[in-house]
Amino acid sequence: MPATAIAQPAHAPRFVYAFGGPRTDGDATMRNLLGGKGANLAEMARLGLPVPPGFTLTTEVCTAFYAGNRAYPDGLQDEVAAALAALESAMGARFGDAANPLLVSVRSGARASMPGMMDTVLNLGLTDATAEGLAQRSGDARFAWDSYRRFIQMYGNVVMGVPHHAFEDILDGYKRHARISQDTAITAQAWQDIIRDYKDLVQREAGRPFPQDPHEQLWGAIGAVFDSWMTPRAVTYRRLHDIPAAWGTAVNVQAMVFGNMGDDSATGVAFTRDPSTGENVFYGEYLINAQGEDVVAGIRTPEPIDAMGETLPEVYAQLCVVREQLERHFRDVQDLEFTVQQGRLFLLQTRTGKRSARAAVRIAVDMAGEGLITREEAVLRVDPASLDQLLHPTLDPAAPRDVVTRGLPASPGAACGAIVFTSEAAQDRHAEGLDVILCRQETSPEDIHGMHAAVGIVTARGGMTSHAAVVARGMGKPCVAGAGALHIDYAQRSITVGPRTLREGDTITIDGSTGEIFAGAIPTVQPDLSESFRTLMSWGDAARRLAVRTNAETPEDVQTARDFGAQGIGLARTEHMFFDPERIQAVREMIFAESAQGRADALGRLLPAQRTDFVAIFSIMEGLPVTIRLLDPPLHEFLPHAPDDIAAFAAAVHLPEETVHKRLAALHEANPMLGHRGCRLGITCPEIYEMQVRAVLEAALEVPGTQPEIMIPLISSRAEMEHMRALVERVAEAVFTEKRKRIEFLIGTMIELPRAALRAGEVAEGAEFFSFGTNDLTQTTFGMSRDDAASFLPAYMEGNLLERDPFASLDVDGVGELVRLAAERGRSTRPGLKLGICGEHGGDPATIAFCEAVGLDYVSCSPYRVPIARLAAAQAALRAEQHKRG
Amino acid sequence: MPATAIAQPAHAPRFVYAFGGPRTDGDATMRNLLGGKGANLAEMARLGLPVPPGFTLTTEVCTAFYAGNRAYPDGLQDEVAAALAALESAMGARFGDAANPLLVSVRSGARASMPGMMDTVLNLGLTDATAEGLAQRSGDARFAWDSYRRFIQMYGNVVMGVPHHAFEDILDGYKRHARISQDTAITAQAWQDIIRDYKDLVQREAGRPFPQDPHEQLWGAIGAVFDSWMTPRAVTYRRLHDIPAAWGTAVNVQAMVFGNMGDDSATGVAFTRDPSTGENVFYGEYLINAQGEDVVAGIRTPEPIDAMGETLPEVYAQLCVVREQLERHFRDVQDLEFTVQQGRLFLLQTRTGKRSARAAVRIAVDMAGEGLITREEAVLRVDPASLDQLLHPTLDPAAPRDVVTRGLPASPGAACGAIVFTSEAAQDRHAEGLDVILCRQETSPEDIHGMHAAVGIVTARGGMTSHAAVVARGMGKPCVAGAGALHIDYAQRSITVGPRTLREGDTITIDGSTGEIFAGAIPTVQPDLSESFRTLMSWGDAARRLAVRTNAETPEDVQTARDFGAQGIGLARTEHMFFDPERIQAVREMIFAESAQGRADALGRLLPAQRTDFVAIFSIMEGLPVTIRLLDPPLHEFLPHAPDDIAAFAAAVHLPEETVHKRLAALHEANPMLGHRGCRLGITCPEIYEMQVRAVLEAALEVPGTQPEIMIPLISSRAEMEHMRALVERVAEAVFTEKRKRIEFLIGTMIELPRAALRAGEVAEGAEFFSFGTNDLTQTTFGMSRDDAASFLPAYMEGNLLERDPFASLDVDGVGELVRLAAERGRSTRPGLKLGICGEHGGDPATIAFCEAVGLDYVSCSPYRVPIARLAAAQAALRAEQHKRG
Repeated sequence: MPATAIAQPAHAPRFVYAFGGPRTDGDATMRNLLGGKGANLAEMARLGLPVPPGFTLTTEVCTAFYAGNRAYPDGLQDEVAAALAALESAMGARFGDAANPLLVSVRSGARASMPGMMDTVLNLGLTDATAEGLAQRSGDARFAWDSYRRFIQMYGNVVMGVPHHAFEDILDGYKRHARISQDTAITAQAWQDIIRDYKDLVQREAGRPFPQDPHEQLWGAIGAVFDSWMTPRAVTYRRLHDIPAAWGTAVNVQAMVFGNMGDDSATGVAFTRDPSTGENVFYGEYLINAQGEDVVAGIRTPEPIDAMGETLPEVYAQLCVVREQLERHFRDVQDLEFTVQQGRLFLLQTRTGKRSARAAVRIAVDMAGEGLITREEAVLRVDPASLDQLLHPTLDPAAPRDVVTRGLPASPGAACGAIVFTSEAAQDRHAEGLDVILCRQETSPEDIHGMHAAVGIVTARGGMTSHAAVVARGMGKPCVAGAGALHIDYAQRSITVGPRTLREGDTITIDGSTGEIFAGAIPTVQPDLSESFRTLMSWGDAARRLAVRTNAETPEDVQTARDFGAQGIGLARTEHMFFDPERIQAVREMIFAESAQGRADALGRLLPAQRTDFVAIFSIMEGLPVTIRLLDPPLHEFLPHAPDDIAAFAAAVHLPEETVHKRLAALHEANPMLGHRGCRLGITCPEIYEMQVRAVLEAALEVPGTQPEIMIPLISSRAEMEHMRALVERVAEAVFTEKRKRIEFLIGTMIELPRAALRAGEVAEGAEFFSFGTNDLTQTTFGMSRDDAASFLPAYMEGNLLERDPFASLDVDGVGELVRLAAERGRSTRPGLKLGICGEHGGDPATIAFCEAVGLDYVSCSPYRVPIARLAAAQAALRAEQHKRG
Repeated sequence: MPATAIAQPAHAPRFVYAFGGPRTDGDATMRNLLGGKGANLAEMARLGLPVPPGFTLTTEVCTAFYAGNRAYPDGLQDEVAAALAALESAMGARFGDAANPLLVSVRSGARASMPGMMDTVLNLGLTDATAEGLAQRSGDARFAWDSYRRFIQMYGNVVMGVPHHAFEDILDGYKRHARISQDTAITAQAWQDIIRDYKDLVQREAGRPFPQDPHEQLWGAIGAVFDSWMTPRAVTYRRLHDIPAAWGTAVNVQAMVFGNMGDDSATGVAFTRDPSTGENVFYGEYLINAQGEDVVAGIRTPEPIDAMGETLPEVYAQLCVVREQLERHFRDVQDLEFTVQQGRLFLLQTRTGKRSARAAVRIAVDMAGEGLITREEAVLRVDPASLDQLLHPTLDPAAPRDVVTRGLPASPGAACGAIVFTSEAAQDRHAEGLDVILCRQETSPEDIHGMHAAVGIVTARGGMTSHAAVVARGMGKPCVAGAGALHIDYAQRSITVGPRTLREGDTITIDGSTGEIFAGAIPTVQPDLSESFRTLMSWGDAARRLAVRTNAETPEDVQTARDFGAQGIGLARTEHMFFDPERIQAVREMIFAESAQGRADALGRLLPAQRTDFVAIFSIMEGLPVTIRLLDPPLHEFLPHAPDDIAAFAAAVHLPEETVHKRLAALHEANPMLGHRGCRLGITCPEIYEMQVRAVLEAALEVPGTQPEIMIPLISSRAEMEHMRALVERVAEAVFTEKRKRIEFLIGTMIELPRAALRAGEVAEGAEFFSFGTNDLTQTTFGMSRDDAASFLPAYMEGNLLERDPFASLDVDGVGELVRLAAERGRSTRPGLKLGICGEHGGDPATIAFCEAVGLDYVSCSPYRVPIARLAAAQAALRAEQHKRG
């Protein structure tokens, strides 16, 4: 058998794996070695599905290529030659054989999907001679020369570096000259003229002729795929998606099949279920008489897949069987690519289908219902972060709306912003704090930054699987794609839709779930969560160990969080309550008080207000634990700073402006983050904390069953903790005596300074709970101010000097060690110490997995992240369980 | 024997220890239990020295007193009664016996000396009846009534709370009325009249009569001593001197002897060597016909001790023998108090003599020479911090000077400042940044804060052992005491000296080594260190393990440090070199450069300047290692901020002021300490670091034998370290290639962020040395800005919430754990990792002991602290050795 010709020593790494021919070497488990595409092609071949034969150069070749300063490892050439010989034998065609040429595609395929990032070359093997042979053999000269010109264009661009537009200019020039608009109107002879011009262009731009040796073509394409692994845009994509460069990419060389060999030929992509809604329907698009990349690129708008039932009924029936088979085999939704060549179906790729959050939830729950997967697997199937998409408000159905046009509902959710036309403008306006909607003919990988900066994306061309649609779903941003009625004029910076003109900066609203585009801003409403969502969350809650609380203090936020399933409040920031316009005056008078009496008077006015706040919170939480942090920010945060405000305040309190300025100057701090705040205020101005403790406990006495937890911020030592504990207990005793009623409550602290973490064993002597304030702990552990990091963090991310933004996802190695240490030391002093996290990290799935591992009792996050935290905590518990079982 | 009457159960604590009579229970080793005074009285009694008998109530009584809410422990009354009976028996006199009354002194005596802090009562046992008896028995009625009135005055004030001045008013009124100026002119009868007025005063002020029962008097005095342990000024003193409250004080009850029984009586204090110079001469003062406290209080100016050789030759000879005996026995200089009662010598106290730093050095070296102590002991005898006094500049001998007057050279060193008359004014002016000299008639414990705030102290009255002199020596501040020519008028805020008048705010200069006071400011010069100093330092260096480097970058400072024995530079801050007026313009232009070329031009102008700096440093250090830290502060520190400066700069660089303001605003940071600085600058603006590395290496190539160590600031991760290391190596390679010459150099980092300490194992992969930047590490570990801490640190110190200022002495528990951890982790990666400390803590003896324990290689401190660090490091090594030997 030819495949045995791939001879090699027993111990050397094997670089080439065959699939789809007489022999298939790999399978789906070999993803790390063969890449996703290569592993799944092998798996499909093993399943007996019609896969054009080919072979895969492993990811280890890529790694060796970069390790060896872009030289291939020894033995690769021989292995490729042997695999190629086997492929020729399987196809009954030969590379460079003018009579019966073997044509191949060369595609990248990394371990993780990187859509649109890596380069592909089709029709490789065509030369002046073999194109002529293909024309004769296929009996379709136009097809043969069109294929050759596509190859020159693709290869010339990808391998030889000739700009894409230079080819397009030649083609457009020809069409203008011939007064035709469609490529399909170009004759075989005309394609030959164009090919001559293309080859001249290549010679001119690349300084060498277009290669006429298929082997040279093949090695050129292989090299280009490996090179594409390190292009800036691939590097950026990997950084954004946490993909290590060391993974490398595989290269798949596969016999060509043609979807553009007439009306019994087609090419398409399909999902085994609807990736947008999750509905169990076959979902996809195809184009008759087109080559593979035409669908994905979104250049022609394709037909829905079920239309194939009429145009190519036999192939469609076969495809439906394949759909069933793949889902049963892979136990998940598959995203497949196929080509029909003259009535014969070929599968070119299958992979796990990307899906919207809504679809992910429904598919997981449905598949568990169908018995395809377990409930635990269902819980693990949904990316917690993606729930964000389900939780954001949608358009208020009652609000008046002015529909401009409708496109494809490419990525769910609603967004409202100013029109921009370029990624640069998107970034600039975003940096200025403006919400923008990026409007493009179609998007390309160059637009990723702009899409990140935008709150929503609109394209005039392309389908549900176009670049814009796939990327927007991945980002969880609303997207309306293929809105063909839009005429976008980049030069004039305007969009015309029928008689209407929209200009850059105009506000529009889009609904990515319906595909509608509206003029102006439309109010939004709370999402109505699906039954599937509730089912999945209940399965997750059953598996979860960590409690989930929320960081909230306004009644609205507290109610939202409870509705989302929060099991308590982990952080109520009392200072937020001070900014109420009616209260800030009293706060300021307190700061300016000359005497203890003056301060007491001002605080006396704040007491009932704070008590009312707490009564409201306790009432909503109905006996769930509520952690209240005493005043944390430095006092100067409460003072007016603008000249007008200072003057107004001075007048209101009958003080000379000069006095206000002096006090402001006295309170000014060089580094407020490290300044006179937190318990330092409680130590220097105990009256403030006394008032707050009184307000908390008086409110708790009013709402039966309340479990208040009083939290002291910024503790760094046992002495501080004891001092503050004594203050709280003193006030509590006074309140309980006055009211002749006692309640249980806890006194604890935030662990937000490295010293507090290190001395946690001592601090726990005075604290019944620790709440990790990981925002400040990250700032102090890194010595990095969150407010100032914008000037250098981008350079860090760019240069791979930080894996992740440590303010978004906990730095497990550094900050995490302090958390782990504090948990251990605290519990060694006080075994029942309650431990939670209340930094923004509390809603980050990776951080939650860490919290599970460290054995915290709860995480606390903003209301909208509560469901995300619930699911992430469930997954963390399940994974820990799996890990324990081995 | 009477002493056996102190019966008690075997296991009960014993509260009372007798001394000096037929039986002595304690000895010098029992200092913790008996206090310093009690233990040494017992020891002297054991040595056979003439100690008036008495007994000591232990410090445990004090502890029990406060633990029991000011109630005495059970059994104390009986033990005191028994001890008193034994004392009566020993003295052949009885408490309250009109014919032959026993009189006692009641004095506090804590474990650590607290000069002037605690209360004393003399002549206790005198009543109307016993005073009469004393008059008859002594045959000196004037003496007896004078003693009684002294007792009423002391007891009335200390025990009964009658203000001291109220007694003084009565006495002054009498003297005015009688037209006499000296107390000695007051007759026995007159004293009786005054006593009557005193007793009326007591009745009026205290609401009860002066007690006529000696036992009541005794318990009142004992209670007053214990009470005095918790007075605010005692609490303050203990806080300033790190004395725990739990130590408690003992109470010594001792039979009275009288130095005021005529011209064959005297009282005095003496040092076995000169406590100011250390010279081996008997040194002290005495007053004929005076009672004990008269000398210490500094009210009369006493005679030098050797004058006693003429006035009381026999006693003097006896005293000289005692001097020898005490020094031999205690192996250290003793500070003793004695009284001569009618020709008979009594020793009332001996204790280790406080001494100036200069004296401490000389005494240690001399005693080692005399064979009294070993060289190691000599090294351990000198408090390293005290060397500060030896190292500060003295008056320039060549400078013109205008001597105002001369007092006693009470505490060495020179100081120059504005005259203030009150401690409050001293504190206020000091807070405003002014150097002040506190000028007082005499000082009292109430003045301690003012003395702390002043740079020097002047008193018009009092001797070398007056309060001002003792305290000033302890603080290491220059002091001129007893400058009797000064007439200080507090009301007019002026000093007159002969025809000259000085007013508050006028500048004077004092020389505490000569006692001179000068008008105006006089320039100072480097101290000339004594031979003893050099000897001691050489002994220390022989014992020392830690190297001592300096933090310096100007040639002057570098030279000073080398002269003081620095073994290298631990921290040369390159940014200090940027502030030179000729360079700051180039630095600013670099910051404002629009193009890479503009930035390169500005940096190109800085390069030769920096190179010249480094050549100078390397030349002075002659091959000793020099650690150069690359640019650390955020760029905005180099920009003009005052409106005038901004305008001037804008004009100089031909930019609109608006542009400068915009750039300033763009560079503004909320928390510069945690901002865009350190290696973050090196990452975002590599050109700056490239220039600096080039300057360092080009300079190193110019100075043969140089060992440069390039230090990267603010590293928090391995990735940063590797990135920076690559930059340094790239520039080095370029320089070495250009210059065709290579040198060895090290690349390392500051460990100044908690994360760097935690990840030290990884960071050490790219770092050949760590230098602990404990200033910033303290700021980040505590989350406490040094610049802002002044608003709350005092409250912390006041409330005992911090043991020590963590910016002065390393917080061993918190920051220290990070240092220890980083040292361990770094060395586990790189066993030869060089470790040092370059924060301000590097010159703090307690921190140096910690550095020795952690096994650092060197400490680095400011030039003037180098000798302190050398001695502290030697002591740390010796103590570690002692500890190892058990």
